[in-house]
This record gives sequence, structure tokens and C-alpha cells, in this order.
Amino acid sequence: MINFTATYTDQYQLAMAQVYFKNGQKDQTAVFDYYFRKLPFKGGFAVFAGLEDLLEKLENLSFSADDIEYLEKQDFEPEFLEYLKNFKFSGNIYSAQEGDLVFPNSPILQLEANIIEAQIVETMLLNLLNFQTLIATKASRIRLVAGDKMLLDFGLRRAQGPGGYYASRAAVIGGFNGTSNVVAGKDFNIPVVGTMAHSFIMSYDSELEAFRSFASGRPKDCVLLVDTYDTLKSGIPNAIKVGKEMEERGQKLAGIRLDSGDLAYLARESRKLLDAAGMEYVKIAASNQLDEYVIKSLLEQKAAIDVFGVGTNLVTGNPDAALDGVYKLAVSNGKARIKISETLAKVTLPNRKQVFRMINSEGDLIGVDAVCLREESNVTRIFDPKEPIKSMTVKDLQKEEVLHWIMKDGKRTQASRSLNEIAAYVTSNLKRLPAEYKRFNNPHIYKVGISQELKEEREKLLAKYQE
Amino acid sequence: MINFTATYTDQYQLAMAQVYFKNGQKDQTAVFDYYFRKLPFKGGFAVFAGLEDLLEKLENLSFSADDIEYLEKQDFEPEFLEYLKNFKFSGNIYSAQEGDLVFPNSPILQLEANIIEAQIVETMLLNLLNFQTLIATKASRIRLVAGDKMLLDFGLRRAQGPGGYYASRAAVIGGFNGTSNVVAGKDFNIPVVGTMAHSFIMSYDSELEAFRSFASGRPKDCVLLVDTYDTLKSGIPNAIKVGKEMEERGQKLAGIRLDSGDLAYLARESRKLLDAAGMEYVKIAASNQLDEYVIKSLLEQKAAIDVFGVGTNLVTGNPDAALDGVYKLAVSNGKARIKISETLAKVTLPNRKQVFRMINSEGDLIGVDAVCLREESNVTRIFDPKEPIKSMTVKDLQKEEVLHWIMKDGKRTQASRSLNEIAAYVTSNLKRLPAEYKRFNNPHIYKVGISQELKEEREKLLAKYQE
Repeated sequence: MINFTATYTDQYQLAMAQVYFKNGQKDQTAVFDYYFRKLPFKGGFAVFAGLEDLLEKLENLSFSADDIEYLEKQDFEPEFLEYLKNFKFSGNIYSAQEGDLVFPNSPILQLEANIIEAQIVETMLLNLLNFQTLIATKASRIRLVAGDKMLLDFGLRRAQGPGGYYASRAAVIGGFNGTSNVVAGKDFNIPVVGTMAHSFIMSYDSELEAFRSFASGRPKDCVLLVDTYDTLKSGIPNAIKVGKEMEERGQKLAGIRLDSGDLAYLARESRKLLDAAGMEYVKIAASNQLDEYVIKSLLEQKAAIDVFGVGTNLVTGNPDAALDGVYKLAVSNGKARIKISETLAKVTLPNRKQVFRMINSEGDLIGVDAVCLREESNVTRIFDPKEPIKSMTVKDLQKEEVLHWIMKDGKRTQASRSLNEIAAYVTSNLKRLPAEYKRFNNPHIYKVGISQELKEEREKLLAKYQE
Repeated sequence: MINFTATYTDQYQLAMAQVYFKNGQKDQTAVFDYYFRKLPFKGGFAVFAGLEDLLEKLENLSFSADDIEYLEKQDFEPEFLEYLKNFKFSGNIYSAQEGDLVFPNSPILQLEANIIEAQIVETMLLNLLNFQTLIATKASRIRLVAGDKMLLDFGLRRAQGPGGYYASRAAVIGGFNGTSNVVAGKDFNIPVVGTMAHSFIMSYDSELEAFRSFASGRPKDCVLLVDTYDTLKSGIPNAIKVGKEMEERGQKLAGIRLDSGDLAYLARESRKLLDAAGMEYVKIAASNQLDEYVIKSLLEQKAAIDVFGVGTNLVTGNPDAALDGVYKLAVSNGKARIKISETLAKVTLPNRKQVFRMINSEGDLIGVDAVCLREESNVTRIFDPKEPIKSMTVKDLQKEEVLHWIMKDGKRTQASRSLNEIAAYVTSNLKRLPAEYKRFNNPHIYKVGISQELKEEREKLLAKYQE
């Protein structure tokens, strides 16, 4: 059992918190920005995910008696531990919605709380949002190439330990239809699905006997794995034989699964054999090291595959290990703050902010976001934050607000949304994103600019620090 | 909270289990092999990890009332659910020890149980062992280049969700000294460590003020982050100033941390400034996208770094997403089984097995393992399992048994070992492995051969299936 108490954090958060506490700064408020710097998978967009989980955990966050006892032994001081006993998260969150498309260097979420709460929750926030955003983005890329084929998450065995639990959730957000992961299916209400393993076939003296046993024990949703011995010479003929026996009992073989070899060729030939036997209704499922590129290639080859089972590459976000999301101080003690750096690209954006997304008359995205100070109502010109000599007018463009209040005083201000609602929201968002941002090779770069007022505030702070 | 009940599995395990149950095969025994095919990181060895966790979970495995209720809704049948209500793991495990060095295509663990139990636990076994073995191996590679420098895991924020929990554990097995991850520190008894964040510095009007506040609030273990504004012109001079003030109070600045820029250069220059101020005792810690290659390069450049904080690349095993561990049927219903394939390399090894490791007179490994049938006591010649025309004699070599009984009837047969014991065991194992297996570029290939008897059993089964 892994508990998501307030010790799901880095030790330095507690060390800093104790210093703030001892120095009488515990009620000092802070605003932190969550954003990332680089899109995963060399893609043109990311799908924001993990928010509902985070909110639920924040609403219930505390240190257990166990935690306090442990921290005592870690030399934390009694007054501070007394404070932690009553710790809860009482801050505010201004954020994009789960399922929104998000882009580099634009705030996705702003968290406002006293500095102690804001620090203690940082690690959990980054841990949950970075990972689920990575996987939802991966899943959405697979969905983009898979059209309306069925996509199933088969990854738990190769997931990064219990990371697989959230990977299954994020996969659905990105457009997957189901998972093999029973505990995730149960906790997140995801359809759970499965076929059979090679071991089942091998545990019988013959493939035919194994198929018969499976079909009689599982007449509904019977999917037979046909590649244990020889797909076209043994697996498919035996599946047809058992399928015919099922027909005689008034049942229907649901499908066959290919898990090795040349999937394009085997699917085509399997389809021919099944169709020739009058079993057009039998679906063909395929698995084995699939990802968005392999699935794209299979479909370009017109492989007759109806269902794709995706494992490792989905649930680990392979080849990207992590989204590089960060959590940077934007306001503290009533003052706007920046983190300076040698390159302007890494200087943070100060203060409370809003993001406006530009849309055309059809409501589609035109590929431009404007990051402004929160009170700005009418941004007219935006500047490249890295090269502010580049600018463009956005005066006459229709705009949508990206960030909204979703938590006040530690309580959600909106009803929690189901996974299906979030997934449908992603689908509609991706429809609104032009194709050039969705292609895999050198996608169009979505522009994120900053308003004149935000630019000037940053310059002012930069000048102050450069003194 | 993530619960490791018996629903931490793939749906097809339950589907197959129900078929076995309905067909009266519930007491049929099976033996499964756990092994992997490819070493991670293009390395020459892997460090087996995750076993103690697995054993603990197996000893306590059951379906909760919640689980049963959920499975009812999933259309599982009443008699089968009745059976699952009393489900526990009552099997036997014959395995390498946690911390053993392990190599491709050699059984690491054999699990013997009735077929239903053996299937249901497969997913959890693979999930825990694949991930922790990946991370322990990564950590050990970092330890190999870091000599006796201090190594700290800073990865939780970029971990694959709660995968970070086990990553912290596996990092210690591979040779890390501590973690920033408080919950892992608490549950696994790992030293927790931490410094301070940029946000702490930024929340004050000046770096000096921030350093003073931190030093007064945390006089013990005070490590100052010096790169927020300008490491050599501001960070180090301010750290020296605060360090001198601490000296006057009879305290000592523990260290400084570098988190950006050219770490080799900055560490060298920082060391000079600190030493010139008579603060030779102040340690230098470095972090920022470190891995085994960067640390190797830093140390080759004689960077004066005492402590390395490693994050993403450690806890995700970057660039490898997963260890490709598999779980293959070796015996069922009293018969040895194989999974055939187009290439001999992927044909599984049948039956109950033992692995003998060859050692020289000093007790060091000579780079040869022999996989035999379990009852074989005296293996004299081994064969390349992929190209059996290659063979070598092992007659006169000293041998160690790799696999041992560690669980009987669902109960551990040996006391659980602490993380420190396992880590010390890894250190001693790596000392026994010759350097050519430990280098990063084209390491020597550790030979895994099969005995004549095992080869013949495989040939017999292959011939049978080829009929």
C-alpha cells in the first residue's frame, strides 16, 4: 500500500517549511507556477492530465500519526511538528482544465497558499501532473493515428512499478478504450479487458485442446491467441475450428490475437482465412511492442487489425522518461518574483497570470497563446518571451481564457469530472487543433507570447536583480 | 492510496483463472520462470531487486470485499468468486537472492503453485521485479563511477508517479546513500536528505538575507544553493559570509549546492573560493540532469564535487523505459513445457531448473553460468542455447548455486533482509565481477549456457511440437 499523505514529498520541502515556521513566516503567502519547458515526443502539443487526482489528494492531505512520529525521529522540532499535526492544504488553485492542450513555457496552473503549504505540496503536484501529462500525451498521439480502432492498455507488467496505476488512467484521457489493469479499472471506472496468454495454450497438450477449453469456459468475449506454434498453419485453422463449434452452440468467437511476427502480413492472411470460413465477424487484435509509429505503419499497410493492445511504450512514455514540468515562485510576501538565468528563455515569468488562447470564427485554435498579468483584460500585442524584439498583434483575435479558479481555500470549486468526460473533452480539443500541430515530424510550433505589461514587469525585476 | 491486493493484475489472469476453475483444473500445478532477454543500458550485468517487496506482498495477498464486489459486476461467475474470497498465495519460490547479479536468458526465479495462483500473481511479480531491477542496475552503474562520493536520489518529482516510491528503494540497493523522498525514507528506512530550493532564495529580497534565514533556522545540515543569481559572484561569496557568521556562533556550514551551469568549472572555482576563506570543511554538492556518464566525466575532470544528487535519469532508468522481464511456463500438469518460436533464441527452457555460477579460486566470477535441470548435481559441459554447436567444458570449475528455496507454501523460508544488507551484498557481488563486465562501452558478454540434459529435454519437446 502506498499512502499519499503529506510525506509524499521531498525532505527539503519540510526543511524549508521548518525554517519559515521558526522565522515567523508561516502565514506569508506565495504563488507558484506549474509549467513545462519542452514538449514530449518531439510533438506539437501536450494533453494536461492528473489534475482531478491532485485535487482529490490535496483536499484530504494531512500528516498521519505515523508520519509525525517518523519526523520526530528525523530531528524536526516539537513546535513545528505540532503545527504539522494540524496541517491541511487551504490554498487556491487557478488552472487549466484536465484535458486541455498545453504548450511550453505557459503557466498551466498557479497555486496560491501560505509558503509552507505551497512548498510541501510541490513534490506531489509535480509527480502526479508530470507523469499523467506525459502518458495522456503519448496516448493521444496513438489515438490520432489509430482513428476509430479500439485501443487497449496492456502495460502494467512493464510499467514503472505502481506508475502503471496512473498510466492506465492517463491512457483513457488520451483516448484509449480500456485497460488490462484490474485495480485501475476498478478505482477509475475504466473498462477492463483481456484475452489469454501463451501459458494457457502451453499448459495443454495441444493448441486445439487449449482453444476448446477456453471457448467452453469463456463463451462470451472469447479471444484466442493464435501465435503460440504457427499462426497461419496452426493458430488460425484451430481458431476457425473452435469458432465453428461455437457457432453450432449458438455462440460467437469474439476475436483472435496476434502477438509476434510480421503483424501486417499475419493480419492480412488471418483475415483472408477467417473470411473464407465465413467468419467476417471475428475481430483481429494485435500486440507486441506497439507505439504510434508502428500502428501508423500497420494502418498504412492496410493491416486488417481491429484492436491494438499497447504496453510498455504507452505506460512508460517511451522514449521520453519524464515531462520536465517545474514549479516556480511567481509571488511571495506580496511581491512579484523571478528566477534569473543566463538565458532569457529560462527566466521565469513573475506575478499572477492568465493565459488567453486565440481562436478563429469556427472556434478552432490558431496556434497562439498570450500570457498576461491576471488583471489584464485586453491584451493587444504579444512578445516572444525569449526574443522580445519579435512581436505580433492579437488585438482583433477572439480569445478564450485558459486558467480558471478550480480550488478555493483547499476545496474544489467545481464538481469532479469523470474520466469519460475528460476523454471526450480531449477529443474535442484535438479536433480544434490544426493538423500541422499534430503531425509527428517537425510539427508546427505553437506560439506562446507574453503581454507588454508582463514583459515590462519582468524587465523591471531583471534590472533590479542585475544591480 | 494504492492497494496491492490481488486485483493488482491483468484482467486476462482472472479470465484464464476462471476457465481453469470451471474446467476443474484449479489444483493443477505449474512452474513459471522469471527471466529477461536483454540487459538494460547496453551494460554487462543487472542487479536483481524487488524480491523482498514481492515476498511480503505474496504473503499477504487476497481479494478485498471491495474487489469481490467489483468482480461480480464484471460478470465473473459466483462459484469462481466464492473461490477468490478465500484466495491466498500458497506456492513455492526458488530464486536468486535480492542483490544477486543476473544475466539474460537465465532463470532468476521459479515460481511453483497451482495454475490459478501462478497466473494471478504474474502481473504483480513482473511489475515489481522488472522495475526495481532496472533502477537498482542504473543506480549501481552510477555507484561504479562515483567511487566513494555521496550519492543522493532527488527524483520523486520527475518519477513515473508512485513508481518513485520503489525507485528510491532500488536506488539504495544499487549503492545510493540517501533519498529526498520522505515517504520512501520512512517506509524503507532510508536516510532522507535535502538542501533548499531556488524558491527559498527567491522568496527573500536578497540572496544574503535568504542564506542568513536558512542558516539560523537550520544550523545543522545547512546546505546553501548558490546558483540562483550568479554562483561565483554572488552565491559563493554570500555563502562564505554566512558560513563565517555561523563559525562565530560555533556552527559549521555543511555545504553548498550547484544546480546549473558548467558543474566542473563552477565546482573547481567554488572550491578555490571556499578554501581561500579557510572553509575546506564545506562540502560541494551538485545536481542537474546527472547520470553515470555525466558523473564519470565530471570526476575525470577532477571536479571538486563531494555529493551528487541524481533525479530523473536515476528514478526512470532513462534511457531505458523497462526491463523486458518475462514469466514463462516451464511445467504444467506434471509435464515440462516450452514456448516455441521461429528463432531458437526465443524458445523457452523447459522444466524445473538450477543455475550454477562459475567462480575462480579467489571466489571471483569468471563470467559463466550454467542452467541445468534441477536434479543435476554435476554439470560438465554447457552449450550456447542459441547456437548449440558451441559448447565448453565446465567440469573442473568451482560452482555456486544461484537459485534457492525462499518461499514454501506461501511463507518465506528465510528472514527478510534489510535494505542495508542487500546493498552491502550488491557491493560484494560487484567486487567479484571482473572489470570488463562493468565497463560502459561494449562490455564483455557474460556466458549463460545450458547443460546437456536441459538441451536434450528442449530438443525432445521441440521435436514433438514440430510433428
